[in-house]
Amino acid sequence: MSEISVVILSIGTELTEGIIRDSHGQFLSSELTARGFSVRRIEQLPDNDGLLARFQDGVNDADVVIITGGLGPTADDITRDAVANLCGKGLEFREDVWEMIKDRFPRLCGNANQRQAMIPEGCDVLDNPFGTAPGFRGEVDGTLLFVLPGPPKELRGMAELHLFPFVEHHFALPVRELSEASIFLIGESRLEEACREIAADNADLESVLWGTRVQERRISLYLRGGREEDRLRFLDLLAKKMGKELVRLGDLNAEQILFSTLKERGLTFAAAESCTGGMLGSVLTSLPGSSAYFLGSCVSYADSFKRRFLGVGEATLSQYGAVSRECAMEMALGVLDASGADVACSITGIAGPSGGSVEKPVGTVWFGLAGKDGAVSARQFRFGFSRDSVRRRATVTAMLLTEIYLDGDDALDMCGFWQYS
Amino acid sequence: MSEISVVILSIGTELTEGIIRDSHGQFLSSELTARGFSVRRIEQLPDNDGLLARFQDGVNDADVVIITGGLGPTADDITRDAVANLCGKGLEFREDVWEMIKDRFPRLCGNANQRQAMIPEGCDVLDNPFGTAPGFRGEVDGTLLFVLPGPPKELRGMAELHLFPFVEHHFALPVRELSEASIFLIGESRLEEACREIAADNADLESVLWGTRVQERRISLYLRGGREEDRLRFLDLLAKKMGKELVRLGDLNAEQILFSTLKERGLTFAAAESCTGGMLGSVLTSLPGSSAYFLGSCVSYADSFKRRFLGVGEATLSQYGAVSRECAMEMALGVLDASGADVACSITGIAGPSGGSVEKPVGTVWFGLAGKDGAVSARQFRFGFSRDSVRRRATVTAMLLTEIYLDGDDALDMCGFWQYS
Repeated sequence: MSEISVVILSIGTELTEGIIRDSHGQFLSSELTARGFSVRRIEQLPDNDGLLARFQDGVNDADVVIITGGLGPTADDITRDAVANLCGKGLEFREDVWEMIKDRFPRLCGNANQRQAMIPEGCDVLDNPFGTAPGFRGEVDGTLLFVLPGPPKELRGMAELHLFPFVEHHFALPVRELSEASIFLIGESRLEEACREIAADNADLESVLWGTRVQERRISLYLRGGREEDRLRFLDLLAKKMGKELVRLGDLNAEQILFSTLKERGLTFAAAESCTGGMLGSVLTSLPGSSAYFLGSCVSYADSFKRRFLGVGEATLSQYGAVSRECAMEMALGVLDASGADVACSITGIAGPSGGSVEKPVGTVWFGLAGKDGAVSARQFRFGFSRDSVRRRATVTAMLLTEIYLDGDDALDMCGFWQYS
Repeated sequence: MSEISVVILSIGTELTEGIIRDSHGQFLSSELTARGFSVRRIEQLPDNDGLLARFQDGVNDADVVIITGGLGPTADDITRDAVANLCGKGLEFREDVWEMIKDRFPRLCGNANQRQAMIPEGCDVLDNPFGTAPGFRGEVDGTLLFVLPGPPKELRGMAELHLFPFVEHHFALPVRELSEASIFLIGESRLEEACREIAADNADLESVLWGTRVQERRISLYLRGGREEDRLRFLDLLAKKMGKELVRLGDLNAEQILFSTLKERGLTFAAAESCTGGMLGSVLTSLPGSSAYFLGSCVSYADSFKRRFLGVGEATLSQYGAVSRECAMEMALGVLDASGADVACSITGIAGPSGGSVEKPVGTVWFGLAGKDGAVSARQFRFGFSRDSVRRRATVTAMLLTEIYLDGDDALDMCGFWQYS
């Protein structure tokens, strides 16, 4: 079967004035690529009279055109008019659609909202249980046209409800095989270099692509095409090169990895944070149900806080400083003892931009690990880049080190071989 | 002067397969809109032989075309070839560019990187101090063409260094006047409704646009055109309607607001968090220099943690529960006393999705406020929506309440009139 091409058009002047970033393009292209479609382009367009020409261009170039946004009740929302022109038809007021909108939103009855019941003639209405504006589906010059509302929850709901099932059934494409891995602590350029070296011996893979998920503190690596065993061998080689704890098969966050380990073993966890300021606790509690494993985190930013809440010694702070093996170990022991957790991790470092020295440059972070049944350990890392990056990397490292520590504190030595950057 | 139109093209199959979200389009369009340019569209395109046609389309439609990405050293990076074709010229190897690249990156000397010294004939090289691939500038059919490297740091640096100064000088456009406000806790649809009502009486404003900045826990509101006094009156009316603490002039985060208040008054702050899990501490410490005001946060997720670290009474927990006025007040007092801070705030609530009840539904959050020189107070809020949204709103609320509390605990009563949702 030949390629089925898609053009995605997101409408809104707030997009082309850079006030918000389009998220629909990524969502739709990711979902459609996974279903075997070929996305030819994604466009963000302002609400103005140039829309018709762009819609026509999309129809000329693709088998499926998806238009999102501009279906609101205000005069700025001109998508439906442009689509009617594209179809060479008028807009008709659909009494049934208007009744449905009023049924769901009895408070609405203005003329503005009545516009949302205007549908281009010949188009099929797509019911919108997520908001007021229905979508619609049509065909122009043999191209399938989907017009969906722009608010993110409505767009996603409508895509799952109407778009994906329809195009899957209509085109019946074979899905492209994919293996996904989650990469931690490794910088993009280092990962790219490693992948290029491995790819040179693995010519069968159709594509190796990655996306940095800053908010999730990881990189997603996607291998497409070829045989599954080749894709897995690729990931295996990458894990050998970079450290197997940093390269995980599947779509996983570090917090999910730590939680499933704690759950499996029936253990509770507590933390003591300094330079991360609470990011570790915040990330761990982003998962529902985290109260079963996570007791708390003592965010001891000031030295006085470290002394009073965690019992870190005055002598430790004056002799070694807060960013030291000794302080990290006392912080971990302090929160372990006071909280009664089974295992605890501490983080103390210099996130920058100021506060560094020759011996302890910005990016120096000490991690302490303590467990009810284990020795107390500490490990030092040097992360580069910005304050934000040091804090994110320290948060991920704390979770990975805790997981490893549960196999015994000797196991921590492997982090000495990690190829992070 | 007539409108100067811009088309922005971001190149990379990782964009059209939905693996990463384009950020260049937003950055460039926001900066260029502020400089008076009119962005006609933003496109994300795959690295394939369709590029030339898209580039030609951009040249036909706009006065300025900006192309980003696809200048890397690998065979996938075909932007430079497509641009050479567009110019109707060949690529020439520029010895001077190659020397410059080798100077900066002595470890590079492969043939792959030599490709980065190939420049379309007739184009001006744009030096790239941020990475290996230089950019270039040319002119095609009277359209100005900028080709810039794709890595975000390089793109931003090159835009500031080459693109913005050049187009500012070349077109000398009048800047569009703008007033910006930062909106807290108010939902998009509620804000839209309020703005629409106010705009009905303020027809002189050219545009009212907003962008939700989820990561910064706020909405940015932009008023463009008209007279400044009209824009400020609009914001004043909005503040009166919604609560003046929730509508602030300027580009501000809640953490900046709290810190500047603490700094002005020379006060230190500590927190006790439950449902936010450390998000408040993490947000406050995202600002460099925060150690001058922020002592720490006791993230007491488990009740045992609340008892042991904050001294919350067993009786309080058993009689009123952890999500109660009494617990919030004891948490705030506990962290105030132990940390020695001047002012403290506590957060305890039900973020969901489970754990709610009829009396305390998901979204119920209590805040406690305590100060060295003030009474202990508590306020309850009910936030809707998801776990993530409850946590983000609780974090912002804690910062705003602390600021207000510094004017006396009576001042907190005004939050009863906030129009948040």
